Parts: sequence; structure tokens; C-alpha cells
Amino acid sequence: MKVELCFSPALYPAYESEDSIVVVVDIFRASTTMCAAIANGAKSVIPVDSIEIAKSYKDQGYLVGAERNVKRVEFADFGNTPSEYSPEKVRDKDVVFTTTNGTHAIETAKGCYRLIIGAFSNLSAIADYCAQEQKDVLVLCSGWKDRFNIEDSLFGGALADKLIQEKGYTVDSDAVQVALSMWTEAKPDLNKYIQQSEHIKRLAANNLLDVAQYCLRIDTVDVVPVYNEETKQIN
Amino acid sequence: MKVELCFSPALYPAYESEDSIVVVVDIFRASTTMCAAIANGAKSVIPVDSIEIAKSYKDQGYLVGAERNVKRVEFADFGNTPSEYSPEKVRDKDVVFTTTNGTHAIETAKGCYRLIIGAFSNLSAIADYCAQEQKDVLVLCSGWKDRFNIEDSLFGGALADKLIQEKGYTVDSDAVQVALSMWTEAKPDLNKYIQQSEHIKRLAANNLLDVAQYCLRIDTVDVVPVYNEETKQIN
Repeated sequence: MKVELCFSPALYPAYESEDSIVVVVDIFRASTTMCAAIANGAKSVIPVDSIEIAKSYKDQGYLVGAERNVKRVEFADFGNTPSEYSPEKVRDKDVVFTTTNGTHAIETAKGCYRLIIGAFSNLSAIADYCAQEQKDVLVLCSGWKDRFNIEDSLFGGALADKLIQEKGYTVDSDAVQVALSMWTEAKPDLNKYIQQSEHIKRLAANNLLDVAQYCLRIDTVDVVPVYNEETKQIN
Repeated sequence: MKVELCFSPALYPAYESEDSIVVVVDIFRASTTMCAAIANGAKSVIPVDSIEIAKSYKDQGYLVGAERNVKRVEFADFGNTPSEYSPEKVRDKDVVFTTTNGTHAIETAKGCYRLIIGAFSNLSAIADYCAQEQKDVLVLCSGWKDRFNIEDSLFGGALADKLIQEKGYTVDSDAVQVALSMWTEAKPDLNKYIQQSEHIKRLAANNLLDVAQYCLRIDTVDVVPVYNEETKQIN
């Protein structure tokens, strides 16, 4: 079984493979937030790609999480910070969710063998799930407005390392090779490594550095959110 | 002045900037080959993106270089190996040129401030040219069928390093940060570093490892091939 890595939704056509599990990742912060919502008992997360659709759900009485350019959208119940999605607020609820980059990546990857949501917070759970399915794995980075970003690629390196070391996966991919090097350099001190990234500056400007630290913590939850093609829900 | 790096033609819309010099790079081997042709006195290189167009030029009596999937196209005078374009063969000639990835990247970047051709072979000439123009620089990797590749990204790191260290450029880009790390790791032994790349295996399978070694040599020529929007020629 092989592990592959796609640095941006705009590159997906060059990497897509019908028979692979696609792991959508948006470390800062959408995929970490979705994992938190599911871990805290949300019945489902319903990803939508526009503010307009999110608003129409809100008008129907749904809970809505919505973020654009790092900030919570005004009408929304939640922004894009994991701790907002507490058990008290989300247990047994459907939560509609739209963010700058993460929900776009989910739209892009529809039609693969299975689409799941990955983050550092559920790294081991993801690796176990993929190995159990005995499928090739394609990590799809959400990036920033289709541009390469460090944090999502770094997750690709971390997951590839685990799949290779612990699950017998192999690699034949330039993108994975580079991400493995990134991971080797970063893992002694993730917080220090991430200081060179573009997005950490955006988060700092919005007083979200504590959230960034949470998003870099490994194995804090034990869930694998799966996208259901029929219901259009993640659970 | 800033330096930016785009890992694939498919990502170009997320990076393009009207006021930047775009450095198109396809280390293995198109951009290295074009630099060799110009350095050896070719009047121009005429990049075309299809075999059909190249064939029609051939029928009009032009010299044609054409490669697909590492191999020379049958009707062509040259493949995609720099040493084929010797002074005896190309001096004062127009050479029509089409390759799997490199000419596609040129098509993609049309419309920027200026489009030039970069390789390890003309690294210092490129850095001098960009600094003299006092323009932002965007390195556009040709990649492999729109996928990320190590060798082109590594050139991005090498050029960025030179522009930062010697020409006062700055960087605010995740892609450049990662490429700078690649370059730091690679530069003590480029040939060893490149062994992990996908394309070196394709070159090895076609007995082209000596060509790969040439393509990794730095500053062997002193030319800056420039694409002319009006004539559609590089010279």
C-alpha cells in the first residue's frame, strides 16, 4: 500500500485515485475543529462551501460554524476554533460548517473510495483506520486559497511516517519525500518549526496562538470523521 | 523585493503577479536544454506545446527538438538532452522545441512582466538579471504532469537563497521556506540528494544519468533566455 500527498486542492486532478482513501487536512483550523466537534458528540458536521448556504441552514434553525479569512462570520454560532464546539453545545446536534479552505477541499475530493478528516489531533486513529481498510492513502492539503502551506504538508509527513514505520506502507512520491524531511526537522519542536509559516502570523494577528498550539497537539481525540456521499454529512 | 515559488503550473493562478519576473524551470531537462541551445548560439528557441505543431514546423524545414515521456519523438532532430544542441548544429538557427512539461509551463506564464528560463546551469546569471531589473521573482516549477517534483523545487530554493543572501530579497512564503530547507540539505551533495526523486528513476531507466549530472551542475553557462511575447521566441 502506498501513501501519496497532494499539496493543494488545485493539484488534486493530478493525484486523484478512485481507489484511495483521501485524508482531507486543514490543520489551522478546519479539520482540527471538525475532529473536535465529532469527538464532543456532534451527530454530524455538514460541510457547505458558501456563506449563503450556511445562512440558509441557520434560518432553518441549524447550528452553524462559519469562518472567512480567519474571522467568525457574523451570523454564525461558532467560528473555526475547536474549543468552541464543546460537548454542551454540540452533543447530538447537526452542525453546518463552512471555512475559507477546509470545506473547499472536501468538495474537491468527492468521489474517492472514502473521504475522511485528518488532523494532528487524530493522527493515530487515522493511521489505524487506513491500515485496517488496506487501502492506498492520499493526503489532500487544504492549503491557503489553493497555495501550498507548511502546516498541512507537515501533517502529510507525520501521517506518512507513521504509515511507513508502523503499517508497512511504501512511498514513491517526491511530495511525500519532502514532507518526511519536513517532519524529521519539525518533530522535536512543532511549535518552533511552525513559526516560519505564513498562517501563524494571521493567527497571531487574531490572538489565536493558543488555538494554534492546540492544533499541533498529537492524538488528543480518538475519532475518524468520515464523509458520507449520500447524506452529505460527516460523522 | 520578494521571491516566491509556485510548485506546479496547475497552481499558477494562485501565485501569478503581473509585475513579477517569472523564472520557468524544468531541471530534468527542458530548461537546462534551452539554456544550452542559447549558450551555444541558437538564434532562438521557439517553444510549442504540441507534437502536431512541432511536426508542421519540421515540414517547413525548421530544426525541431521534441520529447515526450523522457524519449525523443521520432521525427525530431533533437531530443531533450543539452549536449545534443551543439554549436555546430544550432548556431544562428531557430530551434522549435516541445517537451512533456517545460513548454507547458511557458504557455501557463505568458502575460507576466517578463518570462525567463532558469536552470542550475545559469543560476548566477538569473540572480544577477532579476536583481538588476529590481523586480519581484516568481519561480514556476514545471513539475511532472502538474505534480510536484523535487528537482525544480530545489532550484527554487537555490535561487531564493542566492537572491536573499546576495541581492537583498526577502521571503514571506511557505513554499520558499520549505525549498530553502531542501536546498540546505541538498547542497553538500546534489547528486546524492536527488536520488530520492521520482524522475531520476525515469532517467536511469533511459540511460540518462550522465545527463542528470550535467543538469545539476551550477553556473556552466552565462545566458538568460528571455521569452518575447511578440515573436513567441526565446532568445
